[in-house]
Amino acid sequence: MLVSALLTSVGINTGLCCLFFTLYSVLRKQPINYEVYVPRLLAEGKSRRRSRFNLERLIPSPGWVKKAWQLTEDELLSMSGLDAVVFMRIIIFSLRVFGFAGIIGLFILLPVNTSGDQLTNVDFSDLSNNSLDVFTISNVNNGSSKLWVHFGAVYLVTAFVCYLLYYEYNYISSKRVAYFYASKPQPEQFTILVRSIPVSRGSSVSDSVDKFFREYHPSTYLSHVVVRRTNKLRNLINNANKLYRRIIHLQSDSDQTHRQCDCFGLFGRKVDLVDHYEKKLEDLEENLRLQQSDVSLATEEVRAAFVSFNSRYATATAFHMQQSINPTHWLTEEAPEPHDVYWPFFSSSFMKRWISKLVVIVSCILLTILFLIPVLVVQGLTNLSQLEVWFPFLKSVLTITVVSQVVTGYLPSLILQLFLKIVPPIMEFLSSIQGYISQSAIQKSACNKVLWFTIWNIFFATVFSGSVLYQVSIFLDPKNIPSKLAVSVPAQSSFFIAYVVTSGWTSTSSELFRIIPFICSLVKRPFVKTNPDDELEVPSMPFHQDIPRILFFSLLGITYFFLAPLILPFLLIYLCLAYIVFRNQFLNVYAPKYETGGKFWPIVHNSMIFSLVLMHAIAIGIFTLKKLSLASSLLIPLPILTLLFNEYCRKRFLPMFITYSAESLILKDREDRDDPSMSEFFDRLATAYQDPALMPIQYSTNSDSLNSPLISSSSRAEV
Amino acid sequence: MLVSALLTSVGINTGLCCLFFTLYSVLRKQPINYEVYVPRLLAEGKSRRRSRFNLERLIPSPGWVKKAWQLTEDELLSMSGLDAVVFMRIIIFSLRVFGFAGIIGLFILLPVNTSGDQLTNVDFSDLSNNSLDVFTISNVNNGSSKLWVHFGAVYLVTAFVCYLLYYEYNYISSKRVAYFYASKPQPEQFTILVRSIPVSRGSSVSDSVDKFFREYHPSTYLSHVVVRRTNKLRNLINNANKLYRRIIHLQSDSDQTHRQCDCFGLFGRKVDLVDHYEKKLEDLEENLRLQQSDVSLATEEVRAAFVSFNSRYATATAFHMQQSINPTHWLTEEAPEPHDVYWPFFSSSFMKRWISKLVVIVSCILLTILFLIPVLVVQGLTNLSQLEVWFPFLKSVLTITVVSQVVTGYLPSLILQLFLKIVPPIMEFLSSIQGYISQSAIQKSACNKVLWFTIWNIFFATVFSGSVLYQVSIFLDPKNIPSKLAVSVPAQSSFFIAYVVTSGWTSTSSELFRIIPFICSLVKRPFVKTNPDDELEVPSMPFHQDIPRILFFSLLGITYFFLAPLILPFLLIYLCLAYIVFRNQFLNVYAPKYETGGKFWPIVHNSMIFSLVLMHAIAIGIFTLKKLSLASSLLIPLPILTLLFNEYCRKRFLPMFITYSAESLILKDREDRDDPSMSEFFDRLATAYQDPALMPIQYSTNSDSLNSPLISSSSRAEV
Repeated sequence: MLVSALLTSVGINTGLCCLFFTLYSVLRKQPINYEVYVPRLLAEGKSRRRSRFNLERLIPSPGWVKKAWQLTEDELLSMSGLDAVVFMRIIIFSLRVFGFAGIIGLFILLPVNTSGDQLTNVDFSDLSNNSLDVFTISNVNNGSSKLWVHFGAVYLVTAFVCYLLYYEYNYISSKRVAYFYASKPQPEQFTILVRSIPVSRGSSVSDSVDKFFREYHPSTYLSHVVVRRTNKLRNLINNANKLYRRIIHLQSDSDQTHRQCDCFGLFGRKVDLVDHYEKKLEDLEENLRLQQSDVSLATEEVRAAFVSFNSRYATATAFHMQQSINPTHWLTEEAPEPHDVYWPFFSSSFMKRWISKLVVIVSCILLTILFLIPVLVVQGLTNLSQLEVWFPFLKSVLTITVVSQVVTGYLPSLILQLFLKIVPPIMEFLSSIQGYISQSAIQKSACNKVLWFTIWNIFFATVFSGSVLYQVSIFLDPKNIPSKLAVSVPAQSSFFIAYVVTSGWTSTSSELFRIIPFICSLVKRPFVKTNPDDELEVPSMPFHQDIPRILFFSLLGITYFFLAPLILPFLLIYLCLAYIVFRNQFLNVYAPKYETGGKFWPIVHNSMIFSLVLMHAIAIGIFTLKKLSLASSLLIPLPILTLLFNEYCRKRFLPMFITYSAESLILKDREDRDDPSMSEFFDRLATAYQDPALMPIQYSTNSDSLNSPLISSSSRAEV
Repeated sequence: MLVSALLTSVGINTGLCCLFFTLYSVLRKQPINYEVYVPRLLAEGKSRRRSRFNLERLIPSPGWVKKAWQLTEDELLSMSGLDAVVFMRIIIFSLRVFGFAGIIGLFILLPVNTSGDQLTNVDFSDLSNNSLDVFTISNVNNGSSKLWVHFGAVYLVTAFVCYLLYYEYNYISSKRVAYFYASKPQPEQFTILVRSIPVSRGSSVSDSVDKFFREYHPSTYLSHVVVRRTNKLRNLINNANKLYRRIIHLQSDSDQTHRQCDCFGLFGRKVDLVDHYEKKLEDLEENLRLQQSDVSLATEEVRAAFVSFNSRYATATAFHMQQSINPTHWLTEEAPEPHDVYWPFFSSSFMKRWISKLVVIVSCILLTILFLIPVLVVQGLTNLSQLEVWFPFLKSVLTITVVSQVVTGYLPSLILQLFLKIVPPIMEFLSSIQGYISQSAIQKSACNKVLWFTIWNIFFATVFSGSVLYQVSIFLDPKNIPSKLAVSVPAQSSFFIAYVVTSGWTSTSSELFRIIPFICSLVKRPFVKTNPDDELEVPSMPFHQDIPRILFFSLLGITYFFLAPLILPFLLIYLCLAYIVFRNQFLNVYAPKYETGGKFWPIVHNSMIFSLVLMHAIAIGIFTLKKLSLASSLLIPLPILTLLFNEYCRKRFLPMFITYSAESLILKDREDRDDPSMSEFFDRLATAYQDPALMPIQYSTNSDSLNSPLISSSSRAEV
């Protein structure tokens, strides 16, 4: 790829970004778009929907940037919880890493690279006609002692990243502990989920649970809620919800029609329809109430229960100990937050769950294989000459400079990005059928899946199919991986630089602009009359989509910083954009749906360690290829040290992200001991884990105070 | 190898076995050998050292066989603990498996094999001149439908082994629980070992422990013993012990000299020497007492302590929970039995332990590589023709039939066995420096090491160096393992049949005869005057040597039963011998030193599963090789099912071998609640984990009531 092609891509994307930012600055001020751009503020009542028109609304203003910039971490923590803070820490961490690497890369490595003449001399008179390769390590002469500069940079950056990783792990784990200490008593702190409850003949699950915990935990056991199979009820509720929405829609429609024109008899038909639906809804409601009233008939007991205790320490004890002599009975698990429970999960039997798990594994493998096809097509585009061989009739078109530059510089990344867009929802769906009991666990698992999918399918597939596809089999020959990587990775540097610009920049600006919700609202607006009293669904941050993206860019940055330092400024711009945009989104758009207490960080840490070791493998290969085998040998301790560092961090910090220590649990329990509000809390605890499908529901058609929180929570459980 | 060579080997070994058994029957009755053959009975006072001479003592009698046969499992349990029962269960389990496999192998598979003519027709007129290969699967014609018999046998035996594995796991885990329920209160049930204790400036480790547990476990914490670095003291005690023994020896010697001849002035010199040593011992003793009296000066506190609680449940809770916010502090571990603690371990610092661990790993790898040399030599012997190529001058000798038969049939296994003899002590030594806190853990780890060492170095090295050494690299090409195995494994069947006969039979008879202790006692007898009041050191069962051996023979049996069913009768004979011999040894020789509560069984289970999967891989390869690829494909589910079965067993039984459940702990605690002897037990608990090097010691030269249990326990800690 030539510099000019890269510049084309940069140009297009800068233009797009500016456009999006400007549009956003204007559109967000239009009350009609408040639901898209400030749903959170709307829901919190901080922003009123209707306001007077003034001219200022039409002039783009950067006020939101200032607001987002001024947001402190404590404010963010209180507003959006620890997960949002952890998310922002990922960006800050990456900014620091690539700030440091950027200084080394641009001011030291880049001049060294361009001073070589292994490929060609740099043509400074016409920079844009240089191939991007002259800025990479490939241009340094073989065996040149200048390569020791790269060697030093690898050591230096690794040390810096490890130091920062330690610092951040420490910082976030202390935040996590502080968050726990500062938290009010929460139901999930006092509750465990017990599964595989053995039931003797003639007694119910509930009796069994009661007997067991009264026997073995008499002083600490409080209450329990047996889980029930409520998928039938849930279907009924969904139907009722749909019907109710339709009635609301028809009513508001007919009101309007009534107001506007009372002719054509349309009004009469609509009223008939409304009556018809109302009748149907009443029937449904009746049916529901009937089924709910006789729970044991309508639903089946699942051999699982939420069991509550009177102290956090007792809860943790029950969770950590094997309860029964038979280790397959009375399996304990930490309870998620009550609104975080993924209820549909309990509806499937053990066997069904087991089969789903196998299906998920197979699906992930299939998805990975099938995804190679678009990657291959994209690869074809970057190698223009190959494309001409495949499609000779395109030759004439491709000779036009602009076309060829768009095709090689912009199109490949765009296609890849579109395909990548569909991966997170698929992975989330796969995780949801895998047997996790909470939505947060599903998202965490999906986050991991998306991350590794991206790394394997974008990084490795691009790198190795770029040379030859069959090289995927090189992973069976571990000794030669560094040398294979050394040949293939630098060859793809221009693609990945373009990828950062296209995928990275565009993704942040489209995140800000919220393209899809915006289009949806545009399309829906003529048909759906928004009811100002309607419950507004505030979206939650799709961590499983955005964390893997940032981590993948970090991987690119870490692996390419010494090969092609030109990637770093683009990456830094991306990270700065992301920093501002996501802070803004946390302020205005996303509300937290659950709190994992920073459990996403270990994923980040692992991914960074993997990036470092991958970078070391590439460096070892590169130095061998560049005939500086002494440097290769001297690099071998580096991955070993990095892995030992990782091992230490696993011992030092990881346990804090799994459970809380006896020390903190006991201290927290003591704090509550004299709190008078605790008895009230324990009263509420007994019903905290009630399945929402079993709660009473009311669609009183003559009152507008719809029981909407229930609806939204039950529909949320369907996600 | 020809049948005649095998017969030579069988002949030699049968002769040896008979010789050993007869010698044993006679020698064990001689009072002079009681220390070798019935040390346990001697120590328990059941057998008196001096008895009248009678003729019966010189006639071999099989009375001991009867006694060993009649021993019931409950008697064995009460005498030698659960570990001995588990050990016998391994033999019984193998007997059952190979009894079943033997019936199938000898009556179904063997006739099928001999009926083929892929290699040659069986020459029934002169059986001994047939190659052993005609009895193997190699002789069945390619593509013959008779191979389906082997296919069926593989499925049948796998199902049978899995059923038995489940049955035994269940049986032993229930035994383990019963053993726990039946046990008296033991110090290790109420104690945990805490390591990495943080100490603030100015306070001691002891203060720190006290403060922490009084703060967080006020209602359950009882007492603690801080571990001290006592290697200096231990050296002093060892020196004193040596000196004391020398004095005893000299004294008894001079008594004798005094009695026999009072001339030559020898007596005077000896008395001088005794006086000199006594003086020295007194000095040492003084020094020791001085150092012990001021513990804080002579020894250094280690940041570890044994912490005791007032109930088993509280102890288990403290063990399972992460105690401190910082997960690298207050690390908890289950305490071993007090006399099982490996004290020297505490003497080394964290860094030293960490380095030792690395050293151990490297040593294991080195040992594995170096061991290939004897294996290669042995392999050379079985291929006589190759030997003649290497050493042409041997040609004339090797043409003598007897020589060649001894060389091919007996020598290889013997050499291998001698080399293998030194592996268990080496592995035990390596495990001892690896950082285990108890001797039982060291033995368990050594058992694992020896097992995998044997499997890799005997099985795989023999199989693959037999064809070509470089094939060790085939493990980098996992897809082709079955086909490689299929070619190489059957080729070594005659070697392994001979190996079972030589190594197996000889090892049991030498175990019975206790060759090495017997020779030692023979050599020592003229020099050391045994003092009838001397403390007798009763040996303990070397599980890490015998369990891997039996498991390795089981692996051979399982992998070869359908390839070369001729191995089965020899294996059965070996197992029957082992059954009787080891029961006899438990009765007469070995006393338990510690009790793991059957924790050796999971090693057995894993090894069996590995054997099964290996057998499946070989079978898949064989059927492909024999051009019956349908059978190969139909076999593929078998290893998958076996691994799933293993996964189930890991979930169902393994946790029971790691800790006891809350249920059983609480029940056991309740049982003790009203026991009046508990207060006395708790008093003793406070000092149960005192380092033996810190206990008072007394070599009062004028009294014979030597404080020998102390000596033996401190010297035991050096093992």
